[in-house]
Amino acid sequence: MNHAVRHIRLLVEYDGTGYSGFQRQANAPTIQAELERALEKCLKQKTVVIPAGRTDAGVHATGQVCKFRTTSRIPVDRIPLALNRLLPDAIVVKSAREVSEKFNPRFDATSRVYRYTIHNQPISSALRRRYAHHVPRRLDVHAMQRAAQVLVGTHDFASFQASGSEMGGTVRDLVRMECARRGALVTITIEANAFLYQMVRNIVGTLIQIGLGARAADEMPKILAARNRKAAGPTAPPHGLCLMRVKYSSVLRRERRRVRL
Amino acid sequence: MNHAVRHIRLLVEYDGTGYSGFQRQANAPTIQAELERALEKCLKQKTVVIPAGRTDAGVHATGQVCKFRTTSRIPVDRIPLALNRLLPDAIVVKSAREVSEKFNPRFDATSRVYRYTIHNQPISSALRRRYAHHVPRRLDVHAMQRAAQVLVGTHDFASFQASGSEMGGTVRDLVRMECARRGALVTITIEANAFLYQMVRNIVGTLIQIGLGARAADEMPKILAARNRKAAGPTAPPHGLCLMRVKYSSVLRRERRRVRL
Repeated sequence: MNHAVRHIRLLVEYDGTGYSGFQRQANAPTIQAELERALEKCLKQKTVVIPAGRTDAGVHATGQVCKFRTTSRIPVDRIPLALNRLLPDAIVVKSAREVSEKFNPRFDATSRVYRYTIHNQPISSALRRRYAHHVPRRLDVHAMQRAAQVLVGTHDFASFQASGSEMGGTVRDLVRMECARRGALVTITIEANAFLYQMVRNIVGTLIQIGLGARAADEMPKILAARNRKAAGPTAPPHGLCLMRVKYSSVLRRERRRVRL
Repeated sequence: MNHAVRHIRLLVEYDGTGYSGFQRQANAPTIQAELERALEKCLKQKTVVIPAGRTDAGVHATGQVCKFRTTSRIPVDRIPLALNRLLPDAIVVKSAREVSEKFNPRFDATSRVYRYTIHNQPISSALRRRYAHHVPRRLDVHAMQRAAQVLVGTHDFASFQASGSEMGGTVRDLVRMECARRGALVTITIEANAFLYQMVRNIVGTLIQIGLGARAADEMPKILAARNRKAAGPTAPPHGLCLMRVKYSSVLRRERRRVRL
C-alpha cells in the first residue's frame, strides 16, 4: 500500500518542566521524542517532527508549530484527539491541518512571540512557581520598559547571545517589547523575526537588573553596542519563559518574500 | 530555659498535587507533616499545627489558616522566611502573626471561601491541567448559576455529603455561590460557614451535569430536598479545587458571638 504523502502542521502546547527541551536527545526526555513516539503509535510509521523553533530545557509553549509528513490516511481532524490520547498530560496537540509540502515551520515563520512571567512579591507562590520566576524585591517596570524600547528595531544582538554559541549572523529584527505589571505578575513580551540562542532569557536577566536598580535603564544602548555577552546581565531561569505564538505570512506574501530574498 | 508560650497564626498556600491532603497520615506525604517537620527544624521543638480545615488529597489552598504554640523566642516576622527555606516549593507560608491563646482557627472561622476552576474547551491544556478540571463540552454557565442560587441560605446539605461520613448535623449556612465564565475558564466560588465532607466537590459535580444539560437547573430544589447523596451528581476531581480564604470576625464580634451562643 503506497498512499499519497501528506504534510501536516500541528499547533502544540507543553509544560516544559520535566523535559530537556524540544530537541530529541539520546538519554533525556524531550518534547520531540514524546511527539514522535505518539505519532509512530498513531500512524503506524516512523515519523519525524520539525518545529518552528527548539525551546530549551524547562521552557514552556502554548503556540509551538510543528510539521510532519506521512502516508497514513488518518483524517486530519482526528489527529489531535488521537495524539492526545497517546501523549503525556504535559503535551497537548491543539490543532492539526494539512499544509503544502513547501511549508517549513522554521524558515517560513515571519516572527516568534515569547512571554516571560515574573512573580514579583516578597513571598513566593506555591501555585505560580512552575510558570513564573520569583523575584522578591519590587521591580521598577517603567525603567524596564524604557530600557526595553532601546532593543526594538534591527540590531546586532551579540551581547544577548549565549556565550560559546557559534551561529554566524547575530543581527535580528526585534519588532515588539512590552514590560507590564498586573498585580503581582510582571510580564515581558518579546517578538522578533528570530532569536539567538538564549537571547530572550539574557534580555530578561538584564531587564531584571535594571528593574532592581542594579543597573540604570540608560545603560541599555551601551550594553547593546558592546556586542559582547559579558556586557549584559545573567540568563533568567527557563521556567518563566513560554513560546506564545509563531506567526506566518499568508502563502501569497510568503511567495513574494521568497522572490525578494 | 522556660520561655513564655506564644500562639502563632500562619497564612499558608500550597499546591496539593503531590500530597495526600492536609492531615498527617502514617505513610503518605501531607501538608501537615511538612509544616510540622519545618517547624521542628526551625524552632528546635516538636510542634503541632492546627488548620482551619483539612483539605483533601490533591486540593490546593491560597488561604489556609493554621495555628501552633511555641516557647521558641524567634521573632514572629522572621517565621515565614525561616519556614519557607525549610519547606518544599509546593508549600509557602505567606505570613505569621501572634494571636491570643483563645484563637482557634477552626471554630473561630465565620466562613470559608472555596473556588473550583474548570477549563472548558474541546482540547485540554498542558499549562492549566494541574489547577483546573478539564470539561471538553461547552457548559451552560447561566443554567449552573441559576441552579446554584437554590443552594444559598441555611439548608440541610445531606445530599452533598460524601456517603459513609457520619458527622452529626448536616445543616450549613451557604452565603455565596457564583458561577462565572472568563474565556475558557469557568469558576465556581462557594462561601459557607462550614462545609460537609466533599460538599464543594459534590455540588460542583452536580452543577457540571446541569451545565452539560444532563440535568435541568430546575431539579436542584428536589436534589437538595432529598437529603440523600444518591440524588446529587458525582464528586468533581480534587485538582480543580482551591481553599481561597478563611474569614474571621473581629475579636470583639467574636466575643459577642460567643456570649450569644
